Order: sequence, then C-alpha cells, then structure tokens
Amino acid sequence: MSPARHFTFWWLSLILLLSVTALGRVATGQQVGGDARHPNDRSDAVARTMQVAQRAFDHFRRGLATGQWQPFLDMLSDDFTFYFPTGKYQGLHVGKAKAAEFFHYVASVFTEGVQITEVLRVTADEKTVVFEFRDEGKLHGQMYKNRVAVSLDVCGDKICGYREYFGSDGKSN
Amino acid sequence: MSPARHFTFWWLSLILLLSVTALGRVATGQQVGGDARHPNDRSDAVARTMQVAQRAFDHFRRGLATGQWQPFLDMLSDDFTFYFPTGKYQGLHVGKAKAAEFFHYVASVFTEGVQITEVLRVTADEKTVVFEFRDEGKLHGQMYKNRVAVSLDVCGDKICGYREYFGSDGKSN
Repeated sequence: MSPARHFTFWWLSLILLLSVTALGRVATGQQVGGDARHPNDRSDAVARTMQVAQRAFDHFRRGLATGQWQPFLDMLSDDFTFYFPTGKYQGLHVGKAKAAEFFHYVASVFTEGVQITEVLRVTADEKTVVFEFRDEGKLHGQMYKNRVAVSLDVCGDKICGYREYFGSDGKSN
Repeated sequence: MSPARHFTFWWLSLILLLSVTALGRVATGQQVGGDARHPNDRSDAVARTMQVAQRAFDHFRRGLATGQWQPFLDMLSDDFTFYFPTGKYQGLHVGKAKAAEFFHYVASVFTEGVQITEVLRVTADEKTVVFEFRDEGKLHGQMYKNRVAVSLDVCGDKICGYREYFGSDGKSN
C-alpha cells in the first residue's frame, strides 16, 4: 500500500468507528456528547412517577365518591406518612393502619360521598405529583365545598407520602 | 480520477458531511436521531420556569419576613390572579393592584413578620412550581404556625398565577 492509500485507509476506519459508536448510542437512546444520562432519563422518571400517582389519584377520587378505599390503600407503602390540615386528624400520621383508619373516618363523615368536580392543575417531577382540585359534598349533612391540593410522593410503584392542604374554608370552592 | 478513487472520494465526503452535521447538533444541544426536540427542551423549560419561580419565592419569603413586598409585586404579570384560603381575601382575585392591596394587608396583620422556617418540597414542571413550607410568626400578636403550599404559575419571566393552600389550622406546623 502506498503511504497516501495507507493514510486514507486509517482515516476512513477512524471515521467509520466514530460513526458506528455514535449511531449505537443514538439507537440505545443516549445523547451523543455532554451528560449522556440526563434529559431522557429525567423525562422517563417523571412519566413513571406520574403514571403511579395518577393511578393512586383515580382510586382516591373513587374512594371519596364511594367510600370504597381499599384500592387506594393497596397502593400505599408500608412506611406511608400523611399530613391532614384540620380536625381530629390534624398533623402528621405514620403507617398504613393509621391511613386506613383515617380514610374510613372520611367515609363516615361524608356519608353521601365527596365529588372531585374539577382538577385545576397537576404538577409532577421525578418523585412528587401535586394535584390541585375542587371538590364538594355534604359534611355531616351540611353543604361542603373546597379547593384542595394533595401532594403525593411516589416510591417505586407505591405512594409513600401524602400531604393535604385546603384552599378554601369548606364553604366555597 | 480512477473509478475506485472516485468512489473513495464521495464516500469520504458523505461520511464527513454526516459527522459534521451530527457534531453540529451535539454542539447546539440537540439529540442526534429520534425526537430531536423533546427531552432537552423539556428540561430547559423546567429549569427556566424553576429559575423565575425561585426568584419570586425568594422575594415572597423576604416580603413575609420584612413587609417589603415591592420586589415580589414587580414580578407579577398584569393579568396576575390569586386564590387565598380564608378570611377577608378568601377566594379568587384578579390584577396587580388587588395583589398589592392583599400583600400589604398581610404585612399589616403580621407586624413582626412571618418566617418561612423550612421548605419541605419544591415540585416543578414547565409552567408551575409548587412550594410546600412551614412558616411561623405572630398574627395580631398571637402565635401563628402553619404548613402552606403555594402554587406559582410562570409566564415568561413573570408570575401570572398564585394559589395558596393551608396545611394546618394556624396553630401548629
């Protein structure tokens, strides 16, 4: 091989190698150059977290409406914690048993159920999803309306944290 | 040029062109192949939204502590809307003038200021950032403690929506 042909051969081989490497990374969903892990992985993590939280929220919504809380309770982690704003359960509580007690208490005071009438905003990142919504029902027979924010922490396929906040005085939403 | 050299020349040129194109895309932060816009653009949008909301929250925090609300008010859009949970300003309000009136009212009832003692969680997506925090101060001279969620909508470099929720009864946090 002449020196010129030698040079051309190695240059071609190098470019071919780089191209194949780049295509391989693209095929496996990595970004070429820079932080190869960041943006796709983050989007995937947000989507997974959102999926788990949305499933829990659907069960939560049906729990409020029907008093059937078991599907929601089945999604709670063993170390589940929750905060509630007012009344008998005001403050922090720990554990699934306490959660079961609380949500059955909710069913007992809203005997005709609570309807989530409008979801105002859903904000999600990799570990937490915040649902802002309006609800209404009858509390001990009296008209009840509220705006509520519920912040759900997701751990794997379970809900491990729940923080509820009231956006109204329970008389309008 | 011989046919073999002709072939080598065009093959080299093609690979060179593809490589330069790929490098150009990497240099401008685009992903090579697939949906070139999605993951990076989303991450960038979340980061921009977070930056604006964090600046507003820092002004909000100082506003609560000092009663100096102007830097926060300067970040509100002309069509700013806000919800507050209880009392005189319970419900929805529209406009910067109403916001100025409200936040000066806050300063008038918390004459010694309110301290945000702990930020518990910050959840951000492309348009909204939710801050969950504990605060405390003296309301009309009485000890006040709360857990609060404030959901801020970001429009460009302004805050266009504000929804406040209470996580406690104002007596513990």
